[in-house]
Amino acid sequence: MGKINTVSTKVSTGNTLYVIKIGGNVIDNSENLYNFLKDFTALAGNKILVHGGGKVATQLSEKLGIEAKLVDGRRITDIETLRVVTMVYGGLINKNIVAQLQRLGNNAIGLTGADGDFIRTKKRPVKTIDYGFVGDIDENSINPERLQTLINAGFTPVFCALTHDGEGQLLNTNADTIASALAVALSKLYDTTLIYCFEKKGVLKDINDEDSLISDINPQRYEELKSQQIIHSGMLPKLDNAFNAISCGVKAVIIGHSDDLEKLKHNKPFGTLLSKSK
Amino acid sequence: MGKINTVSTKVSTGNTLYVIKIGGNVIDNSENLYNFLKDFTALAGNKILVHGGGKVATQLSEKLGIEAKLVDGRRITDIETLRVVTMVYGGLINKNIVAQLQRLGNNAIGLTGADGDFIRTKKRPVKTIDYGFVGDIDENSINPERLQTLINAGFTPVFCALTHDGEGQLLNTNADTIASALAVALSKLYDTTLIYCFEKKGVLKDINDEDSLISDINPQRYEELKSQQIIHSGMLPKLDNAFNAISCGVKAVIIGHSDDLEKLKHNKPFGTLLSKSK
Repeated sequence: MGKINTVSTKVSTGNTLYVIKIGGNVIDNSENLYNFLKDFTALAGNKILVHGGGKVATQLSEKLGIEAKLVDGRRITDIETLRVVTMVYGGLINKNIVAQLQRLGNNAIGLTGADGDFIRTKKRPVKTIDYGFVGDIDENSINPERLQTLINAGFTPVFCALTHDGEGQLLNTNADTIASALAVALSKLYDTTLIYCFEKKGVLKDINDEDSLISDINPQRYEELKSQQIIHSGMLPKLDNAFNAISCGVKAVIIGHSDDLEKLKHNKPFGTLLSKSK
Repeated sequence: MGKINTVSTKVSTGNTLYVIKIGGNVIDNSENLYNFLKDFTALAGNKILVHGGGKVATQLSEKLGIEAKLVDGRRITDIETLRVVTMVYGGLINKNIVAQLQRLGNNAIGLTGADGDFIRTKKRPVKTIDYGFVGDIDENSINPERLQTLINAGFTPVFCALTHDGEGQLLNTNADTIASALAVALSKLYDTTLIYCFEKKGVLKDINDEDSLISDINPQRYEELKSQQIIHSGMLPKLDNAFNAISCGVKAVIIGHSDDLEKLKHNKPFGTLLSKSK
């Protein structure tokens, strides 16, 4: 004995937190991914990265002869598919992102929701469709203080689209939903901005015209845009979720192109900024 | 602003640390694994788990048509094999172990050496054989204070047999070596015991007789056993490594059967105890 356990903690950079989600289009191109990770690393403040899947899981399933299971057009996560996404999301993609972030000097730790019990979900109940091993987030899924412990210790959490039920079962959970739930839960402790990076400049008036970006939307404007049928139907769930996150405490939501994240470092606007009515 | 970042830390249970390595024989049988993880969880003190691969990686390689590459009888980690072990060790096995530990109330976090930059290695230089993507540990590979931060925050690290080079490259590293290097590095901060769990009761006088267990060996006895040619040749590298770890600060090394770990909880001897001469 005689040794004293020292607690090393790093003072966090202010009280801002960015929860940033990247999708398959960024992950599938190693150059795009590396450029994005550079911009992510350069961003000041506390950060959490959430990543989706990309094509690799589908390719691996095909090689292994596992057929994609669809019921009424909805994708089902059977036990074989769960094994594939555990390998690809939790192993291959997550750990390669972590290794790249470490190369850039960003002290990343790759996580599923099982690690640290950070995201505990409930297996979706079977009603008309059995979705298989899919986990749904509720208001008790995330313990923000526990995640803050990891952030305060100087680590950057990198989450993939996997959670657990607390009974030993891993579950597949949508990465957009994970990002939004993390942002809401952590908004109790941080001034939190949620950023969805995808392959478009942001919310567009005309989906075929990248110059038709709508630079900011508040709830009132959102109602107008919906009533004028300007917003594309595919965008509606994303925007509904975003405004829901804002009403639950998230300061702002940005929807934009992954290449444009660097603008944030220079305090320039990027993508579509969603925020409260003033 | 206006919020204050609170630092949550958990006081660690004394200054003891167990670094416990399990091999493929435990991992390949889900019942054995769950029983082991129960005993691991019940053990008081700080703990780190290190796990090997098991048969799953070989099975996946076969299914994908990746042939095992051997040069002069030594296994080579080519880029395709590295992808497979990243998926299987870092994803499938590691995350399922973490989910089981969480089920048991053990706050595990699954890691490669890339996560948190915990184990940085050097790609093995090509001399007569190119081993491929294999990382060798040296005296600068592990920063014990950084790992202590994670342990003090209340998490149980679970390492798989993957490391990184700090330049974005994941590397395959022997799990026995990772366990021994972690134990040596952390012996600067903790009273550390290194435990290798395998399929035998411990070091046996007669390899075919489980009742011929040698219950303890110190360096002097080790020399005697070697000169009498009692110790089986396959055991020599394991024992050399163990005594090397002890000479570098590890308090004791135990080599025993995974089923017998529970004895430790009751302070009963288990396996073969290797320690310094008195």
